[in-house]
Amino acid sequence: MGSEIQEIKNTIVQRLPSRVQVAKVEFEGPEVVIYTKNPEIITENGDLIRDLAKDIRKRIIIRSHKSVLTEPEEAINRIHSIVPDEAKITNISFDDVTCEVIIEARKPGLVIGKYGATSREIVKQIGWAPKILRTPPISSEIIQRIRRTLRKNSKERKKILQQLGNRIHRPITTENEWVRLTALGGFREVGRSSLFMQTSNSKILLDCGVNVAGKDDKSSYPYLNVPEFVLDDLDAVIISHAHLDHSGFLPYLYHYGYEGPVYCTTPTRDLMTLLQMDHIDIAHREDSPLPFNVKHVKKSIKHTITLDYGEVTDIAPDIRLTLHNAGHILGSAITHMHIGDGQHNFVYTGDFKYERSRLLEPAVAKFPRIESLVMESTYGGHEDVQPTRNDAEKDIIKTIYQTLERKGKVLIPVFAVGRAQEMMIVLDEYIRHGIIDEVPIYIDGMIWEATAIHTARPEYLSKDLRDQIFHMGRNPFISEVFHKVNGIEERKDIVEGEPSIILSTSGMLTGGNSVEYFKWLCGDERNSLVFVGYQAEGSLGRRLQKGWKEIPIKEEGKTNVYHVKMDIKTIEGFSGHSDRRQLMDYVRRISPKPEKILICHGDNYKTLDLASSIYRSYKIETKTPMNLETVRIQ
Amino acid sequence: MGSEIQEIKNTIVQRLPSRVQVAKVEFEGPEVVIYTKNPEIITENGDLIRDLAKDIRKRIIIRSHKSVLTEPEEAINRIHSIVPDEAKITNISFDDVTCEVIIEARKPGLVIGKYGATSREIVKQIGWAPKILRTPPISSEIIQRIRRTLRKNSKERKKILQQLGNRIHRPITTENEWVRLTALGGFREVGRSSLFMQTSNSKILLDCGVNVAGKDDKSSYPYLNVPEFVLDDLDAVIISHAHLDHSGFLPYLYHYGYEGPVYCTTPTRDLMTLLQMDHIDIAHREDSPLPFNVKHVKKSIKHTITLDYGEVTDIAPDIRLTLHNAGHILGSAITHMHIGDGQHNFVYTGDFKYERSRLLEPAVAKFPRIESLVMESTYGGHEDVQPTRNDAEKDIIKTIYQTLERKGKVLIPVFAVGRAQEMMIVLDEYIRHGIIDEVPIYIDGMIWEATAIHTARPEYLSKDLRDQIFHMGRNPFISEVFHKVNGIEERKDIVEGEPSIILSTSGMLTGGNSVEYFKWLCGDERNSLVFVGYQAEGSLGRRLQKGWKEIPIKEEGKTNVYHVKMDIKTIEGFSGHSDRRQLMDYVRRISPKPEKILICHGDNYKTLDLASSIYRSYKIETKTPMNLETVRIQ
Repeated sequence: MGSEIQEIKNTIVQRLPSRVQVAKVEFEGPEVVIYTKNPEIITENGDLIRDLAKDIRKRIIIRSHKSVLTEPEEAINRIHSIVPDEAKITNISFDDVTCEVIIEARKPGLVIGKYGATSREIVKQIGWAPKILRTPPISSEIIQRIRRTLRKNSKERKKILQQLGNRIHRPITTENEWVRLTALGGFREVGRSSLFMQTSNSKILLDCGVNVAGKDDKSSYPYLNVPEFVLDDLDAVIISHAHLDHSGFLPYLYHYGYEGPVYCTTPTRDLMTLLQMDHIDIAHREDSPLPFNVKHVKKSIKHTITLDYGEVTDIAPDIRLTLHNAGHILGSAITHMHIGDGQHNFVYTGDFKYERSRLLEPAVAKFPRIESLVMESTYGGHEDVQPTRNDAEKDIIKTIYQTLERKGKVLIPVFAVGRAQEMMIVLDEYIRHGIIDEVPIYIDGMIWEATAIHTARPEYLSKDLRDQIFHMGRNPFISEVFHKVNGIEERKDIVEGEPSIILSTSGMLTGGNSVEYFKWLCGDERNSLVFVGYQAEGSLGRRLQKGWKEIPIKEEGKTNVYHVKMDIKTIEGFSGHSDRRQLMDYVRRISPKPEKILICHGDNYKTLDLASSIYRSYKIETKTPMNLETVRIQ
Repeated sequence: MGSEIQEIKNTIVQRLPSRVQVAKVEFEGPEVVIYTKNPEIITENGDLIRDLAKDIRKRIIIRSHKSVLTEPEEAINRIHSIVPDEAKITNISFDDVTCEVIIEARKPGLVIGKYGATSREIVKQIGWAPKILRTPPISSEIIQRIRRTLRKNSKERKKILQQLGNRIHRPITTENEWVRLTALGGFREVGRSSLFMQTSNSKILLDCGVNVAGKDDKSSYPYLNVPEFVLDDLDAVIISHAHLDHSGFLPYLYHYGYEGPVYCTTPTRDLMTLLQMDHIDIAHREDSPLPFNVKHVKKSIKHTITLDYGEVTDIAPDIRLTLHNAGHILGSAITHMHIGDGQHNFVYTGDFKYERSRLLEPAVAKFPRIESLVMESTYGGHEDVQPTRNDAEKDIIKTIYQTLERKGKVLIPVFAVGRAQEMMIVLDEYIRHGIIDEVPIYIDGMIWEATAIHTARPEYLSKDLRDQIFHMGRNPFISEVFHKVNGIEERKDIVEGEPSIILSTSGMLTGGNSVEYFKWLCGDERNSLVFVGYQAEGSLGRRLQKGWKEIPIKEEGKTNVYHVKMDIKTIEGFSGHSDRRQLMDYVRRISPKPEKILICHGDNYKTLDLASSIYRSYKIETKTPMNLETVRIQ
């Protein structure tokens, strides 16, 4: 154990009033946990812990010593008497390992109380530290599974966190001389995002994605087989957001023996678990299994440390991580890393939207310091200016209106996560205002589950939506216009039934039910297929955008050709990515100005176009590394 | 053992006439060695082996089986009767391990005979395969030591070569997908050159130098501690030329357990051994010992495989190496690598001179194929246009003339290797023609030894010099105007004596006797200090060039300040480096045109200036990586 850990423990014991009986101080990952026999003294003196945390620059958690815990049965009674009924508690469980009581409630705010008064009262009366979770209005199987996994493996998790605590607080061995970034995937291309950062003291992986439109293993997975990438030496993985091209290869690391942490927001953890599980499922069904399985997704859940936006966290002896809203999908984050003692500050945008959407606030552009920036360029070409949000909405409503008029059906292939929920809110809005007819909107399986996760994390939504949900008591996601689709029979009914709108995955028609719907609907010219998201090179979606009218599809060993008669529309402006103007705007407004910008996540031409435009407009040095190249940022 | 080896063996046995009794076929490094009981049949049918070598694309060596070797005593008699006396044999020794007889002679050409007739006759009569070495006209201690080391360790060397043979001919495991270059030293700077090349199948280090003007270990040595550089995985080291900034850190690899080969020309091996030994010596005397010692230089000698210009050699299962004349110093090479099956061709210039000098032919600019080029930029700034050779010679002669007129002494600090010999030839020329007085020219220790090595390898000199030496029987290096300096007493006599010219190391006044001479001579305004080579930032030489007149020098614990009154002159045009015009010319004329050019070995500004000029003039993509950066060339 490093001397830094001992020093922190000493400081804590000295700083707390002597009447606080500190039983134990432990590190759990980046956090300091204080076990005490009289937690009420600490919880009643909020400033004490706040100041202490500031001084030692760590997050502090207070838990009670086993000896002062009330019996569970009695504790449950007490909780019910303290918490008002309107909180609607759905479940209470106890974790012996961490001495926490996990309270799930429909209105968690009421369990916390004003300035935390209710939750403080709980500690005072029963000893157990309350961990308060939201019970989502739409029940989410994934969230239940994750909570169950964590509950069941509490002991193992504690051990993981303690080991991690020691690793993070190990002594720095050499002076930080340099910081290097190696592009392992998603440079000069879209897909399999993965960026490897090395300092003289530590090693971090940013994103670990797959290219779902990849032809073979070589083009689908990041280049993790380079000699400098040694799993045992990896300090942390950071996942910027849940989409598979950023998170899809994470379980592989655990399959190959990674035992370290993953940092991301809570929605990212939940959503990526959903997408990874589904990916394994689809691959299995298509008889091209992935090089990992559900076991490794579970292992990754046990190693995940969730962070809120703005929470500063030590992830290595020389690195402090902070995640900020990226505006791309729920929980998507811009990663800020502070390296060394003020030596270098690095920002990785991941995928980001620098514009307010129906769903999310725009990406954060203000940071304490930045020396270098890695930014995406999906729409980095100078021609990639998108219509305004308003025009885009008018456009899709018009298409839907016309299709419904001619008794057609509208198929909107969407990523389960992000565009789907954005579309749901738009459709709900226009139906509510009577602008389009109240036809059924079918939400196919996975999207439904992803939407459930959205309802579990309203704090991550835009201010407008939060206002609707919290103050006006109206949650658009649970509107009656939406119908969950269950199974193939129901799908057939929908296809043969009345005009309707269908939201289905995958978003690029690379598999999943959207392809099934497409096959059913493509032969009828009354129907419409509407793309609202990015279609990668090689995907069926991209081919249809290019105007292909004969689509060969392999089915049960033979190839059938589908003749496309349905109307194919691409509606720009709904993207979760910043368009060219927003990308340039972001660089103009980001504060402070970075000295160096690396461009990633864009086709070759867009990467180069954006890089040279940024250099010409703002005289900031830009770099456009290829996969397998290493750039020194310091 | 790979199947490739077995296949080659089979081919050889099948192709040779049945009357040739093949006893054994072995791999020694990249070469195939055939042991036979009747070597005369093979040696008399030269075409047979030449065709076979062409077919299997390997170099073939024929040796006799032990059973047909003549007794050494008898063999010596036979050799003396076969070889004419004018050959002046100085030594004959026998190597039991390789079944070779090593014949050292003043005129090795006469031991070989017309079209090899004499040496073939030797084999025929005694069985032993003759290995013919030149006895230099100036005796070289280093060459003697190297020859002794190789003779004494013949058994160990054979084992090393056999293991290497197996390694080189191992099966290729994965398809070659990419080629990466990582800058480990000497990028955006001059000094500690080192470039790491990785393919999907193999790993090569190009140069391994030290920065002799470095402030500390961190700035003196290449970044070999990056995680991707794993000594055990290294297939080969290639040393472009002997200067310490390209070869000085090589022994360190052997200290840290490297067991693989070094490829370079014979003069490079000899000269770098000299310079490495001297470096260890100086560091030891200055009480700042290097992280390796003489033992490791010896180990490197045992692992060195020397190649002639133009000799194509397999160095890894997917890499063929050819060295070409670089025109920089004796034995300096431009490295050409053919990677994969026609997949990629890569050229590394090392230091090169694209102009004929007194000493050497200009650098080679024609190659079978090139996709990417790494070139130096020492004089890459647009202002770095040097005077013509002719003007430079006039200039130095004028300075010498004036200094001698006023009874002063001329101190020319030079690298022991390269500029020293160039200056010797110039001075000899002008004295011979009576243009400057026949004053003594003092050659301080190390330069003398380096010159001896030059006399051992006349094949590597310019055509003019070769003509002088071979056809006119006049070797300028052994002219009577040159005096070898032995020890401090003699130095003092020189300093206090009559006007003279002194050539001494180090060339940048970073240590060695040139600094001693400087201290003695700097106070007298009649004397001149003439720089004819590059002075690195941080060296005393650079300071004097900048006009410093007060020079503090640490001596025996205290700092003395020297007041500079002597005339300080910098004469451009003698550099062993291409000047700006020659660099641009090289790119213009190199054939075929590379698709990508990386710039190395130049100050930051010169690197960038040359890169952008090349791009603007020839529209070839240029890259200017920093140390620790990785660039993908394929």
